[in-house]
Amino acid sequence: MTHIAVLGYGTVGSGVVEVLNTNRGSISLRGAGDISVKYILDVRDFSDSEYASLFVNDFSVIENDPDVRVVVETIGGSGVALEFTRRALAAGKSVVTSNKEIVAEYGDELLRTAGEKNLNYLFEASVGGGIPIIRPISQCLAANEIDEIYGILNGTTNYILTRMIKAGLSLDDALREAKELGYAEQNPAADVEGHDACRKICILSSLAFGKHIYPRQVPTEGILNVTLDDVQYAKSAGRCIKLLGRASRLPGGKVCAYVGPHLVSASNPIANVEDVFNGIVVKGNAIGEVMFYGRGAGKLPTASAVVADVIDAIKHISSRKLLSWDSADEALVGDSGCLESSYYIRCENGIDAAKEIFGGVQQLSRADAGENEHAFITSPMNLYELKKRVEQLKHSALVLSLMRTLD
Amino acid sequence: MTHIAVLGYGTVGSGVVEVLNTNRGSISLRGAGDISVKYILDVRDFSDSEYASLFVNDFSVIENDPDVRVVVETIGGSGVALEFTRRALAAGKSVVTSNKEIVAEYGDELLRTAGEKNLNYLFEASVGGGIPIIRPISQCLAANEIDEIYGILNGTTNYILTRMIKAGLSLDDALREAKELGYAEQNPAADVEGHDACRKICILSSLAFGKHIYPRQVPTEGILNVTLDDVQYAKSAGRCIKLLGRASRLPGGKVCAYVGPHLVSASNPIANVEDVFNGIVVKGNAIGEVMFYGRGAGKLPTASAVVADVIDAIKHISSRKLLSWDSADEALVGDSGCLESSYYIRCENGIDAAKEIFGGVQQLSRADAGENEHAFITSPMNLYELKKRVEQLKHSALVLSLMRTLD
Repeated sequence: MTHIAVLGYGTVGSGVVEVLNTNRGSISLRGAGDISVKYILDVRDFSDSEYASLFVNDFSVIENDPDVRVVVETIGGSGVALEFTRRALAAGKSVVTSNKEIVAEYGDELLRTAGEKNLNYLFEASVGGGIPIIRPISQCLAANEIDEIYGILNGTTNYILTRMIKAGLSLDDALREAKELGYAEQNPAADVEGHDACRKICILSSLAFGKHIYPRQVPTEGILNVTLDDVQYAKSAGRCIKLLGRASRLPGGKVCAYVGPHLVSASNPIANVEDVFNGIVVKGNAIGEVMFYGRGAGKLPTASAVVADVIDAIKHISSRKLLSWDSADEALVGDSGCLESSYYIRCENGIDAAKEIFGGVQQLSRADAGENEHAFITSPMNLYELKKRVEQLKHSALVLSLMRTLD
Repeated sequence: MTHIAVLGYGTVGSGVVEVLNTNRGSISLRGAGDISVKYILDVRDFSDSEYASLFVNDFSVIENDPDVRVVVETIGGSGVALEFTRRALAAGKSVVTSNKEIVAEYGDELLRTAGEKNLNYLFEASVGGGIPIIRPISQCLAANEIDEIYGILNGTTNYILTRMIKAGLSLDDALREAKELGYAEQNPAADVEGHDACRKICILSSLAFGKHIYPRQVPTEGILNVTLDDVQYAKSAGRCIKLLGRASRLPGGKVCAYVGPHLVSASNPIANVEDVFNGIVVKGNAIGEVMFYGRGAGKLPTASAVVADVIDAIKHISSRKLLSWDSADEALVGDSGCLESSYYIRCENGIDAAKEIFGGVQQLSRADAGENEHAFITSPMNLYELKKRVEQLKHSALVLSLMRTLD
């Protein structure tokens, strides 16, 4: 029997308690023995809950109870959640979290502390909800040099884009619908501005490339500039618009990561990842391309990933799992602007100038296009080359949209 | 420094040696330290190879060398490969294999032996080539009761079906092309008759449901009866034909597995898995649906999975990984005929009788259909109910094709 504590009884925390109870039998079979939730920390009143007797509101009760071997942190944010994580590790308890904000900003520090104390700090649920991705990258793909990772890492924005593509809704209407369905929060900034995807690609690239990469090192653009016009042009070219987080090894050995909307070719398996689903592609030098697909959020999928980590933490209670990365190294992180791709541009006027400046373009069309509206895809180039040419184009055209493409 | 031996220097075996060398740096970072291939067992002459000095043709050299801690078996088949696996385990060496035939037929015995001797027997490469699937099922999804697994498990048949669907090739022509490209063997029976997919679904269902399920318990049909007519009818209904291995929990708690061609709905993510790629969907009671996608075969992808297992075996050299299942239990395995689905039927004549017998059907159409040719999809029913009605239909119609559907 192993005792654990769950911090925060919100969506994920209550899901963790539910999954531990519902699947008690099969969990025990997986080699973790019986798992008992000894405490649930929440300041809110749950006196009507069937678990009422487990609630505490003082973290020191958990901290000082040597019975508790694993602490599950599902509070979110980087306030008390960070404080409790540090104190739990200091008190000799392994920590399992779904908190991408903390892992992306403080993962190096917490992994180092865990390592020094021979504890586990596990965070499968921090990326892709229930989709197994952290463990596959660190274990199954261990034989590979990872060249690139990209993915649809945020279900809310993927839902909005899918509704724009499939139902012709405007971004505002799709966002309103997402809020009504509970897919978007009332303040959706973290999702639609790309910050959530940014944290996740930080975690994936830190793991893949072995050194911590911070959100501030990752240029991030959300979906707020994507219009229905762009969606239609993309469709006419057999593409769809997806918000991708992407991490790539640059020629020369540096790595880079960024977040932004892309025109993705329909033949890319990620183009078929719709609604609130997530899809993550990993490219390795031996394995080629693999994709992981599933629900990137939600109570039970996320709880499923947390509980898998709890099982793993218990199975490795004395022999730590080697899931870690080193401190940040500014010299490792290159400039994503150096990454070449074709670009999609929508503009008013100036198509002849565009053809000349870009040395030929693939012109796109859509129904009901304005008289002087043009859209095209350039040949591959890096961002600086592109910007230089766009500056030239601005003498003859009003540039309305600019996005990378992905084949 | 850990010494290993590689048995068989064919496609996978030579790939393993190549990946170990090429990615030496990153493998060492993954916590397995240096790995040295001390012996390569092959009866053929490789005196020109850069590894010539490592070759032996007598297994007892490896068996009797206490330096060798891990044996990689990539011989294939269940002849000497089985003998050497048993002897390696008996001699106290962990075994890593890509051999689906042995795992599907003898996995229970070999896992038991490994367990008794505190050794690892690992086989990530036996299903889905390089795609991480064995480890995710046993670890990441450990918090779930798995309800169903299905997938495109054989790249050769998926290539053939894709060419029929996309290029309108006949099965014979597509098979010929697959042979020319090296995707199909000269004797393609194991692939096109479904035996390869059968072995893989046996392994996946043994792992998911906890007890060994043998190939003889898995009704298996290949793609030899699939015609271009069927492909066209499927397309007209927004579906495509895929050979699936499928394992499912039946109402009442028994489980079943089978292999056969299905008309898959285009909205199912597996419908977009094309060419030689594999895709495997796992449904759990907490996680919902996840899919794993990638190259299901090939030298380096498969070697990548083998080497990941070698790393894992070395990291767990004294504390065994809990990757195992119990002996077979006839009482666990139910009848896949009890699994309900809609069926696709193509026949000559008898459409009015069909409508009456099946109580309404979804009729399909195709260009250039013969005058009395009909195709339709039934409402959901189990296989016995279906067969009863098909017997009735045979009074009025010549039944040409019969396949399950999957939404």
